[in-house]
Amino acid sequence: MRNGVFYGVGVGPGDPELITLKAINVLKSSAVIAVPRSSDKGSSRALEIIKGVFDFGDKEILELPMPMTKDRAVLDASRREAAILVAQRLGKGQDVAFITLGDPLIFSTFSYLIPFVKELSPLSGIKAVPGVTSFSAAASLHCVPLAETDERVIIVPAAYELEKVRDALASADTIVLMKVNRAIDGIIELLNEAGLLDKAFFVSRAGWPEEEIITDLTAIKGTKPDYFSMIIIRKND
Amino acid sequence: MRNGVFYGVGVGPGDPELITLKAINVLKSSAVIAVPRSSDKGSSRALEIIKGVFDFGDKEILELPMPMTKDRAVLDASRREAAILVAQRLGKGQDVAFITLGDPLIFSTFSYLIPFVKELSPLSGIKAVPGVTSFSAAASLHCVPLAETDERVIIVPAAYELEKVRDALASADTIVLMKVNRAIDGIIELLNEAGLLDKAFFVSRAGWPEEEIITDLTAIKGTKPDYFSMIIIRKND
Repeated sequence: MRNGVFYGVGVGPGDPELITLKAINVLKSSAVIAVPRSSDKGSSRALEIIKGVFDFGDKEILELPMPMTKDRAVLDASRREAAILVAQRLGKGQDVAFITLGDPLIFSTFSYLIPFVKELSPLSGIKAVPGVTSFSAAASLHCVPLAETDERVIIVPAAYELEKVRDALASADTIVLMKVNRAIDGIIELLNEAGLLDKAFFVSRAGWPEEEIITDLTAIKGTKPDYFSMIIIRKND
Repeated sequence: MRNGVFYGVGVGPGDPELITLKAINVLKSSAVIAVPRSSDKGSSRALEIIKGVFDFGDKEILELPMPMTKDRAVLDASRREAAILVAQRLGKGQDVAFITLGDPLIFSTFSYLIPFVKELSPLSGIKAVPGVTSFSAAASLHCVPLAETDERVIIVPAAYELEKVRDALASADTIVLMKVNRAIDGIIELLNEAGLLDKAFFVSRAGWPEEEIITDLTAIKGTKPDYFSMIIIRKND
Protein backbone atom coordinates (compact mmCIF):
# COMPACT_ATOMS: atom_id res chain seq x y z
CA MET A 1 0.00 0.00 0.00
CA ARG A 2 1.30 3.42 -0.88
CA ASN A 3 1.70 6.06 1.82
CA GLY A 4 -0.61 9.06 1.71
CA VAL A 5 0.49 12.48 0.50
CA PHE A 6 0.63 15.47 2.83
CA TYR A 7 -0.73 18.53 1.01
CA GLY A 8 -0.57 22.16 2.07
CA VAL A 9 -3.54 23.68 0.30
CA GLY A 10 -3.89 27.43 -0.10
CA VAL A 11 -7.57 28.30 -0.21
CA GLY A 12 -6.95 31.95 -1.11
CA PRO A 13 -7.21 35.14 0.91
CA GLY A 14 -10.74 34.78 2.27
CA ASP A 15 -13.08 35.36 -0.69
CA PRO A 16 -14.59 31.91 -1.37
CA GLU A 17 -14.38 32.55 -5.14
CA LEU A 18 -10.61 33.00 -4.94
CA ILE A 19 -9.98 29.30 -4.38
CA THR A 20 -8.32 27.48 -7.29
CA LEU A 21 -9.59 24.44 -9.17
CA LYS A 22 -6.50 22.56 -7.98
CA ALA A 23 -7.26 23.27 -4.33
CA ILE A 24 -10.80 21.99 -4.82
CA ASN A 25 -9.61 18.86 -6.63
CA VAL A 26 -7.00 18.03 -3.98
CA LEU A 27 -9.48 18.61 -1.15
CA LYS A 28 -12.07 16.40 -2.85
CA SER A 29 -9.62 13.55 -3.30
CA SER A 30 -8.15 13.71 0.22
CA ALA A 31 -9.62 11.51 2.95
CA VAL A 32 -8.56 13.89 5.69
CA ILE A 33 -8.89 17.69 5.89
CA ALA A 34 -6.46 19.04 8.50
CA VAL A 35 -7.04 22.44 10.00
CA PRO A 36 -4.95 24.25 12.58
CA ARG A 37 -6.82 24.79 15.84
CA SER A 38 -5.70 28.09 17.28
CA SER A 39 -7.06 31.27 18.71
CA ASP A 40 -6.88 33.12 15.43
CA LYS A 41 -9.82 33.23 13.07
CA GLY A 42 -7.93 32.21 9.94
CA SER A 43 -8.59 28.49 10.33
CA SER A 44 -12.31 28.89 10.77
CA ARG A 45 -12.43 31.22 7.75
CA ALA A 46 -10.50 28.64 5.68
CA LEU A 47 -12.95 25.95 6.77
CA GLU A 48 -15.97 28.13 5.93
CA ILE A 49 -14.58 28.74 2.46
CA ILE A 50 -14.23 25.10 1.58
CA LYS A 51 -17.52 24.15 3.21
CA GLY A 52 -19.18 26.46 0.71
CA VAL A 53 -17.47 24.80 -2.24
CA PHE A 54 -18.06 21.09 -1.83
CA ASP A 55 -19.71 18.47 0.32
CA PHE A 56 -17.39 16.99 2.96
CA GLY A 57 -19.21 13.63 2.90
CA ASP A 58 -17.41 11.22 5.23
CA LYS A 59 -14.06 13.04 5.24
CA GLU A 60 -12.34 13.34 8.57
CA ILE A 61 -11.82 16.91 9.80
CA LEU A 62 -8.60 16.70 11.76
CA GLU A 63 -7.95 19.59 14.13
CA LEU A 64 -4.26 20.15 14.80
CA PRO A 65 -3.01 21.89 17.92
CA MET A 66 -1.21 25.09 16.92
CA PRO A 67 -0.82 27.30 19.97
CA MET A 68 0.01 30.99 19.41
CA THR A 69 3.11 31.35 21.54
CA LYS A 70 6.75 32.37 21.17
CA ASP A 71 7.94 29.60 23.51
CA ARG A 72 10.07 27.46 21.21
CA ALA A 73 9.76 24.30 23.30
CA VAL A 74 5.96 24.54 23.38
CA LEU A 75 5.88 25.21 19.63
CA ASP A 76 8.13 22.26 18.80
CA ALA A 77 6.16 19.91 21.05
CA SER A 78 2.83 20.93 19.53
CA ARG A 79 4.16 20.70 15.98
CA ARG A 80 5.48 17.22 16.68
CA GLU A 81 2.13 16.26 18.17
CA ALA A 82 0.36 17.62 15.09
CA ALA A 83 2.76 15.78 12.78
CA ILE A 84 2.13 12.50 14.64
CA LEU A 85 -1.60 12.86 13.98
CA VAL A 86 -0.88 13.56 10.31
CA ALA A 87 1.64 10.73 9.97
CA GLN A 88 -0.84 8.22 11.41
CA ARG A 89 -3.25 8.96 8.54
CA LEU A 90 -0.49 9.00 5.91
CA GLY A 91 0.67 5.59 7.13
CA LYS A 92 -2.80 4.23 6.47
CA GLY A 93 -2.53 5.44 2.88
CA GLN A 94 -4.78 8.44 3.41
CA ASP A 95 -4.00 11.76 1.78
CA VAL A 96 -4.08 14.64 4.27
CA ALA A 97 -4.91 18.14 3.01
CA PHE A 98 -3.86 20.88 5.44
CA ILE A 99 -5.88 24.00 4.59
CA THR A 100 -4.48 27.45 4.98
CA LEU A 101 -5.59 30.96 4.05
CA GLY A 102 -3.56 32.56 1.28
CA ASP A 103 -0.55 30.56 0.13
CA PRO A 104 0.79 27.56 2.09
CA LEU A 105 4.41 28.70 1.79
CA ILE A 106 3.98 32.35 2.81
CA PHE A 107 3.50 32.83 6.56
CA SER A 108 1.55 29.59 6.93
CA THR A 109 1.77 27.07 9.74
CA PHE A 110 1.94 24.37 7.04
CA SER A 111 5.63 25.03 6.51
CA TYR A 112 6.41 24.42 10.19
CA LEU A 113 5.00 20.92 9.93
CA ILE A 114 7.06 19.91 6.91
CA PRO A 115 10.26 18.88 8.76
CA PHE A 116 8.31 16.92 11.40
CA VAL A 117 6.19 15.07 8.85
CA LYS A 118 9.30 14.31 6.78
CA GLU A 119 10.92 12.78 9.86
CA LEU A 120 7.88 10.79 11.00
CA SER A 121 6.66 9.68 7.59
CA PRO A 122 9.72 9.68 5.34
CA LEU A 123 8.01 7.73 2.55
CA SER A 124 5.15 10.20 2.14
CA GLY A 125 5.12 12.86 -0.52
CA ILE A 126 4.75 16.45 0.66
CA LYS A 127 3.20 18.88 -1.79
CA ALA A 128 2.06 22.49 -1.72
CA VAL A 129 -0.88 23.81 -3.72
CA PRO A 130 -0.23 27.53 -4.11
CA GLY A 131 -2.98 30.03 -3.41
CA VAL A 132 -3.84 33.68 -4.01
CA THR A 133 -2.16 35.76 -1.30
CA SER A 134 -3.76 38.31 0.99
CA PHE A 135 -1.53 41.07 -0.42
CA SER A 136 -2.68 40.38 -3.98
CA ALA A 137 -6.26 40.59 -2.73
CA ALA A 138 -5.51 43.83 -0.87
CA ALA A 139 -3.92 45.41 -3.94
CA SER A 140 -6.88 44.37 -6.08
CA LEU A 141 -9.34 46.11 -3.74
CA HIS A 142 -7.70 49.41 -4.54
CA CYS A 143 -6.58 48.35 -8.06
CA VAL A 144 -3.05 49.49 -7.24
CA PRO A 145 -0.13 47.80 -9.03
CA LEU A 146 2.30 46.10 -6.65
CA ALA A 147 5.04 46.07 -9.29
CA GLU A 148 5.65 47.38 -12.80
CA THR A 149 8.70 46.98 -15.05
CA ASP A 150 11.82 47.34 -12.86
CA GLU A 151 10.10 47.86 -9.48
CA ARG A 152 10.90 45.85 -6.38
CA VAL A 153 8.34 44.65 -3.83
CA ILE A 154 9.23 43.77 -0.27
CA ILE A 155 6.94 41.91 2.09
CA VAL A 156 7.68 42.51 5.74
CA PRO A 157 5.98 41.20 8.86
CA ALA A 158 5.81 44.42 10.85
CA ALA A 159 4.88 43.05 14.25
CA TYR A 160 8.46 42.25 15.23
CA GLU A 161 11.07 44.96 14.73
CA LEU A 162 10.28 48.49 13.60
CA GLU A 163 13.91 48.87 12.55
CA LYS A 164 13.29 46.29 9.81
CA VAL A 165 10.26 48.25 8.68
CA ARG A 166 12.40 51.38 8.43
CA ASP A 167 14.99 49.51 6.32
CA ALA A 168 12.26 48.04 4.12
CA LEU A 169 10.87 51.48 3.31
CA ALA A 170 14.23 52.31 1.73
CA SER A 171 14.86 49.01 -0.04
CA ALA A 172 11.93 48.66 -2.44
CA ASP A 173 9.40 50.55 -4.55
CA THR A 174 6.39 48.87 -3.04
CA ILE A 175 6.33 47.80 0.59
CA VAL A 176 3.78 45.37 1.98
CA LEU A 177 3.61 45.44 5.77
CA MET A 178 1.90 42.33 7.08
CA LYS A 179 0.83 41.64 10.67
CA VAL A 180 0.61 45.36 11.45
CA ASN A 181 -1.87 44.78 14.25
CA ARG A 182 0.42 45.38 17.21
CA ALA A 183 2.55 48.16 15.76
CA ILE A 184 0.19 50.62 14.07
CA ASP A 185 1.33 53.78 15.85
CA GLY A 186 5.02 53.12 15.32
CA ILE A 187 4.44 52.36 11.64
CA ILE A 188 2.43 55.54 11.09
CA GLU A 189 5.24 57.52 12.70
CA LEU A 190 7.84 55.89 10.45
CA LEU A 191 5.73 56.56 7.35
CA ASN A 192 5.28 60.16 8.38
CA GLU A 193 9.03 60.64 8.91
CA ALA A 194 9.71 59.09 5.49
CA GLY A 195 7.11 61.30 3.80
CA LEU A 196 5.19 58.23 2.66
CA LEU A 197 1.95 58.62 4.59
CA ASP A 198 -0.02 59.69 1.52
CA LYS A 199 1.38 56.78 -0.50
CA ALA A 200 0.06 54.22 1.98
CA PHE A 201 -3.27 52.46 2.45
CA PHE A 202 -4.55 50.05 5.05
CA VAL A 203 -6.55 46.93 4.26
CA SER A 204 -8.14 44.52 6.68
CA ARG A 205 -9.54 41.13 5.65
CA ALA A 206 -9.50 41.74 1.90
CA GLY A 207 -12.23 39.69 0.26
CA TRP A 208 -13.95 38.75 3.54
CA PRO A 209 -17.49 39.99 4.12
CA GLU A 210 -16.12 42.51 6.65
CA GLU A 211 -13.26 43.78 4.47
CA GLU A 212 -12.10 47.30 5.17
CA ILE A 213 -9.90 49.73 3.25
CA ILE A 214 -8.62 52.97 4.77
CA THR A 215 -6.59 55.51 2.81
CA ASP A 216 -6.13 58.10 5.56
CA LEU A 217 -3.91 56.22 7.97
CA THR A 218 -4.10 58.86 10.68
CA ALA A 219 -7.68 57.65 11.19
CA ILE A 220 -6.42 54.34 12.61
CA LYS A 221 -3.83 55.82 14.96
CA GLY A 222 -4.26 54.40 18.44
CA THR A 223 -6.42 51.50 17.22
CA LYS A 224 -5.64 47.80 17.36
CA PRO A 225 -6.67 46.19 14.08
CA ASP A 226 -6.74 42.39 13.86
CA TYR A 227 -4.17 39.92 12.58
CA PHE A 228 -5.53 40.03 9.02
CA SER A 229 -4.55 43.64 8.48
CA MET A 230 -1.84 45.09 6.29
CA ILE A 231 -0.50 48.36 5.01
CA ILE A 232 0.69 48.76 1.42
CA ILE A 233 2.96 51.61 0.41
CA ARG A 234 3.50 52.26 -3.28
CA LYS A 235 6.08 54.96 -3.85
CA ASN A 236 5.51 55.48 -7.58
CA ASP A 237 2.26 56.77 -9.02
CA MET B 1 -27.28 51.77 -20.45
CA ARG B 2 -24.50 51.09 -18.00
CA ASN B 3 -20.88 51.16 -19.15
CA GLY B 4 -18.97 47.91 -19.17
CA VAL B 5 -16.40 46.97 -16.55
CA PHE B 6 -12.72 46.57 -17.43
CA TYR B 7 -11.34 43.53 -15.60
CA GLY B 8 -7.73 42.46 -15.21
CA VAL B 9 -8.02 38.72 -14.68
CA GLY B 10 -5.13 36.70 -13.31
CA VAL B 11 -5.35 33.18 -14.69
CA GLY B 12 -2.55 31.85 -12.48
CA PRO B 13 1.05 30.91 -13.22
CA GLY B 14 0.52 28.53 -16.14
CA ASP B 15 -0.96 25.35 -14.65
CA PRO B 16 -4.58 25.34 -15.91
CA GLU B 17 -5.77 24.01 -12.54
CA LEU B 18 -4.38 27.08 -10.76
CA ILE B 19 -7.08 29.37 -12.10
CA THR B 20 -9.60 30.62 -9.51
CA LEU B 21 -13.37 30.23 -9.57
CA LYS B 22 -13.63 34.03 -9.67
CA ALA B 23 -11.48 34.27 -12.79
CA ILE B 24 -13.67 31.66 -14.50
CA ASN B 25 -16.88 33.43 -13.46
CA VAL B 26 -15.68 36.83 -14.66
CA LEU B 27 -14.46 35.40 -17.96
CA LYS B 28 -17.76 33.61 -18.51
CA SER B 29 -19.80 36.76 -17.92
CA SER B 30 -17.61 39.06 -20.03
CA ALA B 31 -18.54 39.63 -23.67
CA VAL B 32 -14.95 40.40 -24.64
CA ILE B 33 -11.74 38.57 -23.74
CA ALA B 34 -8.76 40.88 -24.28
CA VAL B 35 -5.33 39.42 -24.69
CA PRO B 36 -2.04 41.25 -25.21
CA ARG B 37 -0.49 40.49 -28.59
CA SER B 38 3.26 40.50 -28.19
CA SER B 39 6.28 38.44 -28.97
CA ASP B 40 6.32 36.77 -25.57
CA LYS B 41 4.56 33.46 -25.03
CA GLY B 42 2.68 34.48 -21.88
CA SER B 43 -0.43 35.64 -23.73
CA SER B 44 -0.80 32.46 -25.73
CA ARG B 45 -0.31 30.39 -22.58
CA ALA B 46 -2.98 32.45 -20.79
CA LEU B 47 -5.35 31.89 -23.72
CA GLU B 48 -4.63 28.14 -23.77
CA ILE B 49 -5.43 27.93 -20.07
CA ILE B 50 -8.85 29.51 -20.34
CA LYS B 51 -9.69 27.65 -23.56
CA GLY B 52 -9.34 24.46 -21.55
CA VAL B 53 -11.71 25.68 -18.87
CA PHE B 54 -14.80 26.89 -20.69
CA ASP B 55 -16.39 27.32 -24.07
CA PHE B 56 -15.83 30.76 -25.60
CA GLY B 57 -19.14 30.63 -27.49
CA ASP B 58 -19.61 33.94 -29.33
CA LYS B 59 -17.25 35.98 -27.17
CA GLU B 60 -14.98 38.37 -28.98
CA ILE B 61 -11.25 37.68 -28.59
CA LEU B 62 -9.70 41.12 -28.73
CA GLU B 63 -5.97 41.20 -29.41
CA LEU B 64 -4.28 44.29 -28.03
CA PRO B 65 -1.01 45.62 -29.43
CA MET B 66 1.66 45.44 -26.71
CA PRO B 67 5.09 45.81 -28.30
CA MET B 68 8.13 44.75 -26.27
CA THR B 69 10.21 47.91 -26.40
CA LYS B 70 11.79 50.42 -24.06
CA ASP B 71 10.85 53.37 -26.28
CA ARG B 72 8.48 55.34 -24.09
CA ALA B 73 6.72 57.10 -26.98
CA VAL B 74 6.04 53.81 -28.77
CA LEU B 75 4.79 52.26 -25.52
CA ASP B 76 2.46 55.14 -24.73
CA ALA B 77 1.06 55.20 -28.27
CA SER B 78 0.39 51.47 -28.28
CA ARG B 79 -1.18 51.55 -24.81
CA ARG B 80 -3.46 54.39 -25.89
CA GLU B 81 -4.38 52.44 -29.02
CA ALA B 82 -5.14 49.36 -26.90
CA ALA B 83 -7.19 51.44 -24.45
CA ILE B 84 -9.23 52.91 -27.34
CA LEU B 85 -10.18 49.40 -28.46
CA VAL B 86 -11.15 48.51 -24.88
CA ALA B 87 -13.08 51.74 -24.31
CA GLN B 88 -15.14 51.19 -27.50
CA ARG B 89 -16.45 47.91 -26.04
CA LEU B 90 -16.99 49.37 -22.57
CA GLY B 91 -19.01 52.22 -24.14
CA LYS B 92 -21.33 49.63 -25.69
CA GLY B 93 -21.95 48.19 -22.22
CA GLN B 94 -19.72 45.17 -22.77
CA ASP B 95 -17.49 43.91 -19.97
CA VAL B 96 -13.91 43.41 -21.12
CA ALA B 97 -11.74 40.82 -19.35
CA PHE B 98 -8.02 41.31 -19.94
CA ILE B 99 -6.28 37.99 -19.21
CA THR B 100 -2.84 37.83 -17.74
CA LEU B 101 -0.59 35.09 -16.38
CA GLY B 102 -0.08 35.23 -12.63
CA ASP B 103 -1.56 38.25 -10.90
CA PRO B 104 -2.83 41.30 -12.84
CA LEU B 105 -1.12 43.78 -10.50
CA ILE B 106 2.34 42.17 -10.36
CA PHE B 107 4.41 42.78 -13.50
CA SER B 108 1.38 42.64 -15.77
CA THR B 109 0.64 44.81 -18.78
CA PHE B 110 -2.88 45.24 -17.37
CA SER B 111 -1.68 47.90 -14.96
CA TYR B 112 -0.25 50.01 -17.80
CA LEU B 113 -3.68 50.23 -19.41
CA ILE B 114 -5.46 51.43 -16.27
CA PRO B 115 -4.67 55.18 -16.60
CA PHE B 116 -5.54 55.20 -20.32
CA VAL B 117 -8.84 53.37 -19.85
CA LYS B 118 -9.70 55.66 -16.92
CA GLU B 119 -9.14 58.68 -19.15
CA LEU B 120 -11.01 57.33 -22.18
CA SER B 121 -13.88 55.67 -20.33
CA PRO B 122 -14.20 57.52 -17.02
CA LEU B 123 -17.58 56.02 -16.20
CA SER B 124 -16.39 52.41 -16.42
CA GLY B 125 -15.42 50.40 -13.40
CA ILE B 126 -11.93 48.93 -13.37
CA LYS B 127 -11.40 45.79 -11.32
CA ALA B 128 -8.60 43.32 -10.75
CA VAL B 129 -9.16 39.62 -10.09
CA PRO B 130 -6.04 38.46 -8.25
CA GLY B 131 -4.29 35.29 -9.32
CA VAL B 132 -1.70 32.80 -8.06
CA THR B 133 1.75 34.22 -8.82
CA SER B 134 4.61 32.52 -10.63
CA PHE B 135 6.81 32.78 -7.52
CA SER B 136 4.26 30.94 -5.38
CA ALA B 137 4.15 28.23 -8.04
CA ALA B 138 7.95 28.08 -8.16
CA ALA B 139 8.23 27.75 -4.38
CA SER B 140 5.60 25.01 -4.38
CA LEU B 141 7.59 22.94 -6.90
CA HIS B 142 10.40 22.66 -4.40
CA CYS B 143 8.10 22.93 -1.34
CA VAL B 144 10.33 25.68 0.06
CA PRO B 145 8.75 28.29 2.36
CA LEU B 146 9.04 31.84 1.02
CA ALA B 147 8.43 33.31 4.47
CA GLU B 148 8.03 32.13 8.06
CA THR B 149 7.38 34.16 11.23
CA ASP B 150 9.47 37.35 11.02
CA GLU B 151 11.10 36.76 7.62
CA ARG B 152 11.07 39.30 4.81
CA VAL B 153 10.63 38.46 1.12
CA ILE B 154 11.80 40.75 -1.66
CA ILE B 155 10.79 40.37 -5.29
CA VAL B 156 13.23 41.92 -7.72
CA PRO B 157 13.19 42.05 -11.51
CA ALA B 158 16.81 41.17 -12.17
CA ALA B 159 17.04 42.05 -15.83
CA TYR B 160 17.68 45.74 -15.20
CA GLU B 161 20.39 46.62 -12.67
CA LEU B 162 22.64 44.09 -10.99
CA GLU B 163 23.36 46.66 -8.27
CA LYS B 164 19.73 46.35 -7.17
CA VAL B 165 20.09 42.58 -7.05
CA ARG B 166 23.14 42.97 -4.81
CA ASP B 167 21.20 45.28 -2.47
CA ALA B 168 18.24 42.91 -2.43
CA LEU B 169 20.42 40.00 -1.32
CA ALA B 170 21.19 41.96 1.85
CA SER B 171 17.72 43.34 2.53
CA ALA B 172 15.56 40.23 2.97
CA ASP B 173 15.55 36.62 4.12
CA THR B 174 14.10 35.28 0.89
CA ILE B 175 14.91 36.85 -2.44
CA VAL B 176 12.89 36.18 -5.58
CA LEU B 177 14.72 37.24 -8.72
CA MET B 178 12.29 37.54 -11.63
CA LYS B 179 13.14 38.09 -15.30
CA VAL B 180 16.59 36.57 -14.84
CA ASN B 181 16.85 35.63 -18.51
CA ARG B 182 19.31 38.27 -19.65
CA ALA B 183 21.49 38.40 -16.55
CA ILE B 184 22.19 34.83 -15.48
CA ASP B 185 25.98 35.00 -15.38
CA GLY B 186 26.09 38.22 -13.40
CA ILE B 187 23.56 36.87 -10.91
CA ILE B 188 25.49 33.64 -10.39
CA GLU B 189 28.62 35.69 -9.75
CA LEU B 190 26.81 37.85 -7.18
CA LEU B 191 25.38 34.79 -5.43
CA ASN B 192 28.80 33.19 -5.33
CA GLU B 193 30.36 36.33 -3.83
CA ALA B 194 27.61 36.47 -1.20
CA GLY B 195 28.04 32.78 -0.35
CA LEU B 196 24.43 32.11 -1.32
CA LEU B 197 24.87 29.81 -4.31
CA ASP B 198 23.85 26.70 -2.38
CA LYS B 199 20.77 28.49 -1.00
CA ALA B 200 19.45 29.26 -4.50
CA PHE B 201 17.38 27.36 -7.03
CA PHE B 202 16.26 28.16 -10.55
CA VAL B 203 12.76 27.53 -11.86
CA SER B 204 11.49 27.99 -15.38
CA ARG B 205 7.78 27.94 -16.30
CA ALA B 206 6.54 26.49 -13.01
CA GLY B 207 3.34 24.55 -13.62
CA TRP B 208 3.69 24.54 -17.42
CA PRO B 209 4.14 21.21 -19.19
CA GLU B 210 7.81 22.11 -19.80
CA GLU B 211 8.55 23.27 -16.23
CA GLU B 212 12.15 22.97 -15.12
CA ILE B 213 13.83 23.19 -11.73
CA ILE B 214 17.59 23.37 -11.31
CA THR B 215 19.31 23.37 -7.93
CA ASP B 216 22.91 23.53 -9.13
CA LEU B 217 23.02 26.99 -10.65
CA THR B 218 26.50 26.56 -12.11
CA ALA B 219 24.83 24.23 -14.62
CA ILE B 220 23.02 27.16 -16.25
CA LYS B 221 26.03 29.49 -16.45
CA GLY B 222 26.36 30.85 -19.96
CA THR B 223 22.83 29.87 -20.93
CA LYS B 224 19.95 32.17 -21.87
CA PRO B 225 16.77 30.92 -20.19
CA ASP B 226 13.45 32.42 -21.27
CA TYR B 227 11.37 35.23 -19.80
CA PHE B 228 9.44 32.89 -17.49
CA SER B 229 12.48 31.99 -15.42
CA MET B 230 13.32 32.96 -11.87
CA ILE B 231 15.81 32.27 -9.12
CA ILE B 232 14.73 31.96 -5.51
CA ILE B 233 17.20 32.32 -2.66
CA ARG B 234 16.14 31.31 0.82
CA LYS B 235 18.79 32.15 3.39
CA ASN B 236 17.31 30.25 6.33
CA ASP B 237 16.92 26.49 6.40
